[in-house]
Order: sequence, then structure tokens, then C-alpha cells
Amino acid sequence: MESYKKPDRENVSNWYIDIIQQAKLYDYGPVKGTMVLRPYGFSIWKAIQQYLGAEIEKNGCYDTYFPSLIPESFITKEKEHIEGFSPELALITYAGGEKLSEPITIRPTSETIMYSYFSKWIQSWRDLPLKINQWVNIVRWEKRNLPFIRGTEFLWHEAHTAHATEIDADEQIKSALSLYKRFFEEFLAIPVITGKKTPSQKFAGAAYSTSCEALLIDGKGLQIGTVHNLGQNFSKSFDIKFMNVDNNENYVWQTSWGISTRALGGLILTHGDEKGLVLPPKVAPIQVVIVPIWKNEKEKTDIQNKTEEVLQTLKLNNIRAESDFRNEKPGWKFNDWEMRGVPIRIEIGPKDVENNSVILARRDNRAKNVVKNDNLIDEINNLLIDIQHRLFNKAQKFVEDNTHYTDNYKDFSDIIENKSGFVSAYWCGDDNCEKSVKDETKATTRCIPFDNGTGEGTCIYCGNKATLKPIWGKAY
Amino acid sequence: MESYKKPDRENVSNWYIDIIQQAKLYDYGPVKGTMVLRPYGFSIWKAIQQYLGAEIEKNGCYDTYFPSLIPESFITKEKEHIEGFSPELALITYAGGEKLSEPITIRPTSETIMYSYFSKWIQSWRDLPLKINQWVNIVRWEKRNLPFIRGTEFLWHEAHTAHATEIDADEQIKSALSLYKRFFEEFLAIPVITGKKTPSQKFAGAAYSTSCEALLIDGKGLQIGTVHNLGQNFSKSFDIKFMNVDNNENYVWQTSWGISTRALGGLILTHGDEKGLVLPPKVAPIQVVIVPIWKNEKEKTDIQNKTEEVLQTLKLNNIRAESDFRNEKPGWKFNDWEMRGVPIRIEIGPKDVENNSVILARRDNRAKNVVKNDNLIDEINNLLIDIQHRLFNKAQKFVEDNTHYTDNYKDFSDIIENKSGFVSAYWCGDDNCEKSVKDETKATTRCIPFDNGTGEGTCIYCGNKATLKPIWGKAY
Repeated sequence: MESYKKPDRENVSNWYIDIIQQAKLYDYGPVKGTMVLRPYGFSIWKAIQQYLGAEIEKNGCYDTYFPSLIPESFITKEKEHIEGFSPELALITYAGGEKLSEPITIRPTSETIMYSYFSKWIQSWRDLPLKINQWVNIVRWEKRNLPFIRGTEFLWHEAHTAHATEIDADEQIKSALSLYKRFFEEFLAIPVITGKKTPSQKFAGAAYSTSCEALLIDGKGLQIGTVHNLGQNFSKSFDIKFMNVDNNENYVWQTSWGISTRALGGLILTHGDEKGLVLPPKVAPIQVVIVPIWKNEKEKTDIQNKTEEVLQTLKLNNIRAESDFRNEKPGWKFNDWEMRGVPIRIEIGPKDVENNSVILARRDNRAKNVVKNDNLIDEINNLLIDIQHRLFNKAQKFVEDNTHYTDNYKDFSDIIENKSGFVSAYWCGDDNCEKSVKDETKATTRCIPFDNGTGEGTCIYCGNKATLKPIWGKAY
Repeated sequence: MESYKKPDRENVSNWYIDIIQQAKLYDYGPVKGTMVLRPYGFSIWKAIQQYLGAEIEKNGCYDTYFPSLIPESFITKEKEHIEGFSPELALITYAGGEKLSEPITIRPTSETIMYSYFSKWIQSWRDLPLKINQWVNIVRWEKRNLPFIRGTEFLWHEAHTAHATEIDADEQIKSALSLYKRFFEEFLAIPVITGKKTPSQKFAGAAYSTSCEALLIDGKGLQIGTVHNLGQNFSKSFDIKFMNVDNNENYVWQTSWGISTRALGGLILTHGDEKGLVLPPKVAPIQVVIVPIWKNEKEKTDIQNKTEEVLQTLKLNNIRAESDFRNEKPGWKFNDWEMRGVPIRIEIGPKDVENNSVILARRDNRAKNVVKNDNLIDEINNLLIDIQHRLFNKAQKFVEDNTHYTDNYKDFSDIIENKSGFVSAYWCGDDNCEKSVKDETKATTRCIPFDNGTGEGTCIYCGNKATLKPIWGKAY
């Protein structure tokens, strides 16, 4: 087994590429930027689908499936939208042995195809709100690729809602964002900053965009979830009108929001360490692995029996557990499961059989202790909760330690270049200032946080009066 | 509300196209042969995914995701496979604003992309069996389309397994087929005949194929699930070798099997009647709908309260229930929910409030009875079980009544032309006889049933000695 260098800021990307393959999460697809999610990787995505899917349904969005094949003419209906997406489209020009009269695109996102049906399904205020969702694959021809973070093909959920009033749409934005924040922080233990994107960073076709921004272990920011207020831009392009209670015809107000397999990248790059993956218990496909340890055949039977017994007890208590009877040395197995990020390891040796106990080893802080069989389930359940909290708190502290405050552009540039992390600094609202900062430092605005994102100060670039205080940082 | 003509054999297809849209299951996609699965339709598919997904996992297959984008060169590696699929491929030739050097296909099935990884992942007998699954969209450019039954894009699961021996692969075929049969019969209440496909009907690249065949209400057959034994055809093309216990190198033996959204077509066309859909309780997204009935405002409050109370009781007892407070007449609502196939309707009127009772109306045989509140949950649970059984038994009887036996070709042709349904008739095994029957009568072999598919007789076409007794029929 290879040992990993500590993923410090210099070698994070090598560590990352290596670990996702070693841990059997990921394999590169044959077409550049495509991916194979192996069973271990897919089971993390499946856990996300289950948790997030239930929350989306509770929010009132129902699952659907819309075609992946979208006529090119659909994409061009919303002007900003086509400008944003046309460089990334994949075009089917031949099919069934014939040249097509109109090229067909593979969905880069589903606004255009979904909304052409909204105009048919929505007639009256009684049909509103219309809230749907789908879990699908997406194709965008990206020039730069990084596993999970940015790819030609990825998986996501996309929720789309239509409302009678602007206020209803704004409320939807808030509830979607708070749903997302809860998901990231409570389920994946990833602290996120929520806020509004600046106009230059918004979704192509949105009135405004909001997002969840994470800070990864190399000090770069990651936009990990987005919630767009589409205003009436698409409803006007797609003619989605409804008759209101007062018999007036009106265009609907819309939102769309999504979280993708990029979240897996965020997960790995928030919690990973020099030994490999570290998975929060709630999302870990295997929460507990049992490694039996015997020196001779005499000990073997008892230890095997006890391992089997403990495994069954864990499963009966809804703890996701596995035993490892592979023909390898215990130390090799320890490394292997640590590398794969399993939160708790149970070791069972001859002494443990004798003493009616087992050894519990934590993945996160590597603490070990002996636990009596009688207390096993309680101890493990407590430990799983504790690990989940500790990982979040550790990540939260990392974000705090790496978020800097300055009103001086030289300091700003220094921080971005030498310390990385986030910088909270005022901005006058001018696109040109934002662009100049980006050109000179590579830092972009991540978002204008809802919490502590306004005030009175001077623009970090031009020095003019400013009321917006975005978070800036280098980003994936 | 429209009323439907009884779906007799002449007008089934109009009835079908109409009902799937009226019931808000399905909408036509903009690209020919693509589909929109609306929330009601998708929730049926989701129920299928949950039941079947759990069974597939119990069978030892783990979920994965492989790219939908497959380089054209992959598809051409297995000779028979490319011959079978090349007429149906969609080709991406431009992407990201540039012409691609090699066209990329959208997966028409995933053997070729998956197996190029199998050769990397499988080294030794310890890596076997390798069993994986995925739930994905599939694109095949079909000339003829029919909603759910045959389309340019559909959804499916595809399981792929690799084994050390031919015997292991054969065992896998048996267990997959019995899993499928159980799924169709116990969950969807669709009786199926399992058997072996004739060589002309097998999957492109398989050693042999087996299938589940259903008989629909118009007397046509539907291949509703397939299980392929791939032998070593793909392992030789994709170089999937392993070192055996005895240190000999060997090619793996493989199987692949799938069930698609075609099952929704089978479901509708097995149970539907002149009033619309009839959904078996196990798969019905809504098992019970409550329709409150009041004549004046005085009655309204009590009835509303009781409706709410009953709804909560049903939900607490894990019965999928909804109440209908729409501003429409009760009769209109009855028709609407019958059309949408909800197994049980509860009516709550002023008398029911008075008597501590409700009225239960079955969708399947339209029986109604009054039930005391105290017995409600038991009554409903019993009714749901009874409806599920009755639907299966009714469908089973339909298959029996419409399966004919003959050794005379004139009778055979008569039955196919005038009665439709299945015909069990001997076949000598010669492709030419099979083809002639098809050309002259439009009947194809559906499968050679494992149960009662062999014996001694004379070929229905050439009159020579024959030992195989396939099921023949017109098919979708």
C-alpha cells in the first residue's frame, strides 16, 4: 500500500487524483471529462440522493424525467441562456444512419425543455406553484476537467418551480437555500457560506443567483450548490402564462436549483487527510469495519464467530457494517480501510474474546479504546454522532482560520497569493473592479453573504464608497 | 371528462395513447420517440426502482455509474454487437464548438464501456464474481415508436456480471430470471412466461438470451425483461482474463440483464379497462383516495375534519393516501381517480359522519361497501392484498384463455389472424421455418418456455420432427 503525503496546499491535487482511484470511488471515463462511479463512489452518491431526495420531496417538488435529447432550437429561446451554454454544447448530427435535419443537443441543464411543457401544463393560478425535480446526467463540453469538480458528464438533481408572484419565488429561493445549507452542514459536515452571486457570476438567464460556497483544504473556494431566481425571463421566452384569481393574465415567476456530483469532490477535499479519505458517518457507505486478528488456528474459530456475531448485531441496529476476512496482514487492512475513510474500525483479537470486549478505533482523530460487548451499540452510536460533529467543527474552524478581512488592496493580493483562503472585502458593485481584481490576483467574488455581506466601506479596488462586502477567493 | 371506449382488441392503441396522457403519466418529448415522465408516471417508475433495486442488491449487484458517452470504436469491438446496434446509434460529431476527431455515441446499452473496465478490475479468481448494476437512460434511434414500449430514449436498469465458470454464469441467469418473474408477478401482477429466445431473437453478442414474455389485452406479446448469457464472447473481445486457483489464465463468463420503462407499458396494457388505468396496490403511487361529499356548508366542517382525520390515520399506517378537496362535483372526482387507476376510493358524506363509518369503493371490480371507522385500517389492508391477488389471477386467466395449442399450420394462421394471443406449437429449429412463419403470419417465436417448451412433435411449418415447442405470437 502506498502511503500518502500530507495533503498540504502544494500537493492537494495529486493527493486527490490518487486517493479517489485508490479508494475505488472513481475511474476516468474514455471520453475526456467523463467518469466511472464505482460501487463505493456511487453508494456515497446514493446516500446523498436518499437524504436530499427526501428533503426535496418534503419541499413539495415531485420527481419527473424529461428527455436528455433537446432540439438545438429550444436552447436558443432565452438569449442569455444560449450565450452562456452554446460553447459547451454537444451536438448529435447523425442518428439511425441518417443526417439529422436539426442538430440535437444533450441536456446541459433542463430549463428549456421543461419550460416548454410548463406553458402547456400551467393555465390558472390553481396550477401554481408547479414544483418538479429530476435526478439525471448532464453533458457540458468543458475545456478544463477535474474529477467530480468539473466534467464533461456529471450527475445532479435539478429542481424547477413556477410561482404566481415574485414574493413566492423569493420565498422558494430562501427555503431551497436553507434546505441546501442543512444538507451540506448536517449531512456532509461541510460548512457553507450562503449568499448572492454578483451579476458576472450568475447563471445564464437568471434574474439573480444564490449559492453555497465551501472552502477546501487547499484554500480554494468551491461553489457547491446553486439556487437561481429566474424572474420572468424564461416565462416570457417560453410563454408560461396563467390566469390569476382576478382574471388577469400573468407570466409566472420561476426558480431552478441544483446540486451535483461535485459535492463528492467537496466532501473529499473538506475532510481528507494524509491517510486518505475521511467520511462523515452519515454519508459513509460503511460506517464500521471489523478486522479480526488471530495468530494461530486455535484462536481463529472463536474470533471468526465473535466477528460474525458483532457484525450481525451492528446490522440489526441499522449500523452499516462489514467484516474483513481477506487473506492479508491486519496492518495492511487497517491502512486500507483508513484510506477508504471508514469512520470506525473494530479490532477483535484473542484478548477481546477472553474479555468480552472489542477495540474501537476512530478514523478522524485515531483514538482507540476498549469497549465491553454489552455497551457496544451505545458506544458506537455515540461515537458516530461525535465523529460527525467533530468533522463539522474542524472544518468550520478551518474556514474561520482561513477567512481574512482587509480593506487594503496590497494586503488583499498578498493574502490571495500567499495564504489563500477567503477574503472578506468591500466592493463598489462595478463589474470592472471585479474583473480587474480577477485579472491581477485570480480571485473572484464567491458570493455576497446573506450574513455579514453588507455595510459601509470602500471598494478594495477603486477605493470608492461601497456597501457590498463579498467573499473573494481563488476558486475551482 | 371523456369516457373511454372499452379497450377491446380493435381500439386498444388509441385508448392507450389517450389514457397515459389523460392520467398525467406521460407526455411526448420534442424529439421523436422521447418521453416526459410526469410526477404520476415517474412515481410508478420510482416504486419499481425501489422494489427491483433492493432485489438486485440482494442478488449481490452493486450500483455504479458509467459514462453515457461511448467512443464509437468501443461499440465495434464485438462483431455481432456492432451489427445489432449500429443502425440505432446516435452520433455526436460536434462538441464544445469543434468537430470531434472520433464520433461519440450515446449508450445504446453499456456492455462495451463497462467491459473495458472489467479487464482492468479483474485479475484473479478472488475478484470474481464481479456483479454491478446501473439505473440510467438509454438512447436507440428506433424507426417505430410507441410510448413506453419502444422509444428513442428510455430508462432502465442494466446488471452485468462476470464469473469464473460457465456453470456460475448459468446459475446467475437462473437467479436473475426468477428474480424478474417474482418482480413481474408479485409486484406488478403481470403473469410472465420465462424461456429461451431462439437464435434469431437473441441479443446481439449473446451466447443465448432468455426473457420474460407477457401477453397484453390486445392479444399481442411483449418481451418485458431479458437476461443474456454472453458466454465468453465479450471477455474475448475485451480481454477480460483472470488467474484461476490452479494458476491457469482464463476468460470470464458473463451475463447481462435489464428491465426498462417498457414495464410501465406492460403494466397499463395488462390491467387497464374501459374506465382507464387499473394499478395494482403494490405499485400504485396513491393506494387510497378520499373524496369528501357535502351538500351544504353546515355539513362541510364535520366532513372536512373527518376526511383529514382518516387521511392522517391512513398515512400513519403506511398507506399511500390523498384527499381530494378540489372544487368539482363528486362524480367528476370519482371518474378522475378511476381513470388514474387508484385501487381504493373512500367516500365520506354526512351519513358517514353520523354513523362512524365510510364507504369503500374498489377500482378493480367496482364493489362498494360500508365500513366502520374502527375496522378501517384492517379492511383496507385486506382489500389491498385482495385487489393485488385478483388482478394477477384475472391476468393469469386471460393468458390461459388466450394461449392456444395446435399442430396444424392452417389453424395456426387462423388463430394468429383472428383470435390473436399466444400459440404453443412445435418448431424444428430451422431459422428458415421461423422466418417463413413470420413472413406469412406476422407471428414470431416469443420464447421456448422452460416450462413445457420441449417434447416430441412435428414442426408447425415444415412438418419435420421437432423437439422444441416455442410460444408464438404477434409482438410489440
